[in-house]
Amino acid sequence: MGIAAIGKRRWAIAEGYLPAGPAGASRELSSHETACILNAGERDAHVEITLLFADREPAGPYRVTVGARRTLHLRFNELHDPEPVPVGTDYASVFESDEPVVVQHTRLDSRQAALALLSTLAYGAE
Amino acid sequence: MGIAAIGKRRWAIAEGYLPAGPAGASRELSSHETACILNAGERDAHVEITLLFADREPAGPYRVTVGARRTLHLRFNELHDPEPVPVGTDYASVFESDEPVVVQHTRLDSRQAALALLSTLAYGAE
Amino acid sequence: MGIAAIGKRRWAIAEGYLPAGPAGASRELSSHETACILNAGERDAHVEITLLFADREPAGPYRVTVGARRTLHLRFNELHDPEPVPVGTDYASVFESDEPVVVQHTRLDSRQAALALLSTLAYGAE
Amino acid sequence: MGIAAIGKRRWAIAEGYLPAGPAGASRELSSHETACILNAGERDAHVEITLLFADREPAGPYRVTVGARRTLHLRFNELHDPEPVPVGTDYASVFESDEPVVVQHTRLDSRQAALALLSTLAYGAE
Repeated sequence: MGIAAIGKRRWAIAEGYLPAGPAGASRELSSHETACILNAGERDAHVEITLLFADREPAGPYRVTVGARRTLHLRFNELHDPEPVPVGTDYASVFESDEPVVVQHTRLDSRQAALALLSTLAYGAE
Repeated sequence: MGIAAIGKRRWAIAEGYLPAGPAGASRELSSHETACILNAGERDAHVEITLLFADREPAGPYRVTVGARRTLHLRFNELHDPEPVPVGTDYASVFESDEPVVVQHTRLDSRQAALALLSTLAYGAE
Repeated sequence: MGIAAIGKRRWAIAEGYLPAGPAGASRELSSHETACILNAGERDAHVEITLLFADREPAGPYRVTVGARRTLHLRFNELHDPEPVPVGTDYASVFESDEPVVVQHTRLDSRQAALALLSTLAYGAE
Repeated sequence: MGIAAIGKRRWAIAEGYLPAGPAGASRELSSHETACILNAGERDAHVEITLLFADREPAGPYRVTVGARRTLHLRFNELHDPEPVPVGTDYASVFESDEPVVVQHTRLDSRQAALALLSTLAYGAE
């Protein structure tokens, strides 16, 4: 596949929130918040994620690797090292990668009967 | 945390609307419209917000401070000075900060039984 | 209000669709698709809108004026001149303004019991 | 129609997911994921789409043509050559066009009773 790398090395998501409360019928439909990271290039991307909060010091960095020509749909509630992401708390996130990537933010919320989804491109800066 | 400032100093959200009508079961699930402001830098950001309308002069500026390495999830219906944000009225908003920030726009709507959420990055300009 | 103009003069929304079918309980909750146009500057913005389709020539231009320091939340189903926007048909839209503006795309869909909302910033180019 | 080309030649959507499960009441309301591609220019745009996954090599390229001054609302589940898009699997997509286009990503999800919609501009790079 001759596609070239695309994207930027720094991204920010200003909106973040992990709902507390009961889980959905399955992992697929459970409430979750995801950062989709696309690495279209020929080299693995090493990404450091820092979480920022309203009233405490930032958490992190969390480290993930997105393989060359791969995409990673990262669930924030599966980040545990150096500490879990708190539920019921507003947060924001900053992504710093050693290769160009594209970051998109998506949420599924199953607290009420109806499924709600949102998605938006993160803010990218070189 | 060695992360650097990210973002821009001027942002605009063209779409804004605070629904009137009954509140939800809790503050968390009540209808609201939020501007999430992320300040990843080392200095506090002083942000002035101006609201624009269809058929009257703009309101504001409203002033908020987002601490260094902090995020503020600002609910428009909690802005009261110099005047409350009117409900049931279309508006838009412009953000002017003395430090780089990232602004994302999110709405929760509980007027009907199902929860609806939308979110989108604001338009950023230096 | 000392805010300056913000935005770009050309915008595009690639996704557009006016659902057919029964209206909602009120104008406020009826299905609609909106282009929110913000003009934060000191001069009126004259905007020409062209609609593009899958299998016919474009329609328009439709002309609207957004006053200085005003926002216009334009419903596509209220565009009638030179022709109404067809329902049940995919379309896209291009906005050309003589002043910088910001364009955001929002849809309310009341075809089913639950309210669905989406919103995203349009693509802006100078 | 004197409108000029608008957009970029390379686009990426980091988030992609085709739900498995029962279809909706009609094609219009069935779960689907769409890439809306707008070509406002005077020449046909030839677009190559590559899909990237979490744990296998990319698929594609899929080839589509978007006519001059036309828009194409492409459903991913209607891509079959060189292979169908797998359901229940995270993916991402990269678009490479020989003319400037605008790409927007939209999803309708009818797995549960309520209709959920999301839409966001893709990431564009020259």
